[in-house]
Amino acid sequence: MIDNPYYTPEFHGDYELISIGRLDLEEGGSIPDCRLAVATFGTLNDAKDNAILIPTWYSGTHQIFRDVYIGPDHALNPDEYFIVVIDQIGSGLSTSPHNADGANAGIAMSKFPHVRIGDDVVAQERLLREHFEIETLQLVVGGSMGAQQTYEWAVRFPDKVKRAAPIAGTAQNTPHDFLFTKALNEAITSDPGFNGGEYSSNADVVGGLRRHAGIWAVMGFSTEFWKKEVWRALEFDSKEAFLEGFLEPYFTVMDPNDLLCMAWKWQRGDVARRTGGDLAAALGRITATTFVMPISEDMFFPVRDCRTEQEMIKGSELRVIDDVLGHLGLFGVAPTYMPQIDQHLGELLARPA
Amino acid sequence: MIDNPYYTPEFHGDYELISIGRLDLEEGGSIPDCRLAVATFGTLNDAKDNAILIPTWYSGTHQIFRDVYIGPDHALNPDEYFIVVIDQIGSGLSTSPHNADGANAGIAMSKFPHVRIGDDVVAQERLLREHFEIETLQLVVGGSMGAQQTYEWAVRFPDKVKRAAPIAGTAQNTPHDFLFTKALNEAITSDPGFNGGEYSSNADVVGGLRRHAGIWAVMGFSTEFWKKEVWRALEFDSKEAFLEGFLEPYFTVMDPNDLLCMAWKWQRGDVARRTGGDLAAALGRITATTFVMPISEDMFFPVRDCRTEQEMIKGSELRVIDDVLGHLGLFGVAPTYMPQIDQHLGELLARPA
Repeated sequence: MIDNPYYTPEFHGDYELISIGRLDLEEGGSIPDCRLAVATFGTLNDAKDNAILIPTWYSGTHQIFRDVYIGPDHALNPDEYFIVVIDQIGSGLSTSPHNADGANAGIAMSKFPHVRIGDDVVAQERLLREHFEIETLQLVVGGSMGAQQTYEWAVRFPDKVKRAAPIAGTAQNTPHDFLFTKALNEAITSDPGFNGGEYSSNADVVGGLRRHAGIWAVMGFSTEFWKKEVWRALEFDSKEAFLEGFLEPYFTVMDPNDLLCMAWKWQRGDVARRTGGDLAAALGRITATTFVMPISEDMFFPVRDCRTEQEMIKGSELRVIDDVLGHLGLFGVAPTYMPQIDQHLGELLARPA
Repeated sequence: MIDNPYYTPEFHGDYELISIGRLDLEEGGSIPDCRLAVATFGTLNDAKDNAILIPTWYSGTHQIFRDVYIGPDHALNPDEYFIVVIDQIGSGLSTSPHNADGANAGIAMSKFPHVRIGDDVVAQERLLREHFEIETLQLVVGGSMGAQQTYEWAVRFPDKVKRAAPIAGTAQNTPHDFLFTKALNEAITSDPGFNGGEYSSNADVVGGLRRHAGIWAVMGFSTEFWKKEVWRALEFDSKEAFLEGFLEPYFTVMDPNDLLCMAWKWQRGDVARRTGGDLAAALGRITATTFVMPISEDMFFPVRDCRTEQEMIKGSELRVIDDVLGHLGLFGVAPTYMPQIDQHLGELLARPA
């Protein structure tokens, strides 16, 4: 266990750590005491049928949803819905390589088992059912790896998911995405300070984490983001200052093994694992009313790939979010971003389901 | 000086090493005895006005042009033209960090000075004039960094360049491209074996060169290249085998300092250095009949960026090459690639100029 002050309420605000007990994993092995960090907004009604679930993306937590996506002025309105954000396994807040202790102590750090998107979804379903008695979700919505979990939910538990909104992510990860994530991983693991995963602090791996941020700079935004110097809106005066003041510190506080745990899942996200590799059959199981929401300038979950999947989902619609930020438009930096999200999610929630 | 068997006629076929004497550099300093590797095809006519110049791209040499682009069945036809391919400074065949000896011995390895695209073009102009007595070029054509040099030629020596065909490259490098190249560089320099540039063999840096190849895998092809498994056409049976059997060995034989020398130039390619930063003014100097030829799926010299520049060049035309390989379509792997190149270059050469 590593004491990393980033993964605390001081940085992430209030959340509850809820144990779901032993989680047996798809790849074999188990997490003896799986704890999920959960932040909720709004009130669960007596019928327990006004819940929305938000799973989180790579490196992200409930924090960004609380700060950007959720509020009385948004479609994700806690005055109407009980909104549950569950931080993924490996996020650093839920059970993760860096924080494994107690019953999990034997699987700390580099020995942490491989977790799959499906394991997260099974864990989340159990938590919602056992802890909140929620059997039906009005909406599952998530971005990037959150979209992977959204698809997994809609395929695995079609009776529980009334509506689904995968944003900037796919149901079946692409080979290009796999290679992108491989490059991210290798930036970290090639740092001599990584020491096969047995470093004593994330600070030992700061060089690798910085290079990892540098690869995000190439793929996370769009070519036009850099050309138009959109980072000026964040009050930086050079792209170097933006890297050093924003993207690098965003990642260098994080735990390397935690990032690698999430990346392993991301690389292998695939709903067709449920149907012997038949993607159309897997997506054909979806009964949720689904809006597929890619971001126009996304370089690694491009609209083309998202449209291909959308066309396999009965009654679904493609709703492209126009954003020059590309994938990291998910941060909601552009003033035009949330209005588009709110419009599409508002329409989706207004649909009978 | 490092003895690297890759940079020999055994791997690159015949070429001539021609000294142009001392080359003073834009950034200061000089190369005391600058030697350029030159491969020629066809015969220079008595009027010395049937020459075509091809400058080379990052990691490439004259070899790919000889094997793929030049021939009696191509627009670059040695039966009609005297075609001169000049390997760029840092290419490993021309004067480069790894091979500096003789008069250049004092500037070997990590002390090699910064060279700019403009230095290459000045060196090439001198070589053509002094060695071949060529004062006029029917065409300058190059891909990627070769396109950067093509633009530099057309802006710097407008009276000498009748036609220009920059393929998959820009006149002014973009900030996104700068960051992509930065990630490539850092993959190399972060390898402990790099040792500040003072390794004893490229084999010391094989890990870094492999990660560098891994980043090329992400940006060099298109997302669709990987999704459609286009590498199967090259007779590999998995993307991993393609990486290990093609992309990694392509780069791991190369010299790290040579790659870094070229990358430094690439990052800073900018014809507007001639006009106080005014790109329109620089491109306005071009009198060559110009076809701007981006590749449709290029992830770092996207059509959008190339079109913006093309629109600043009087009488120019945008000729997009359709190729799912993306930037590395330049290798001419797709059977549909060279027919498009030949058609456009053939039309361009048929234009009065």
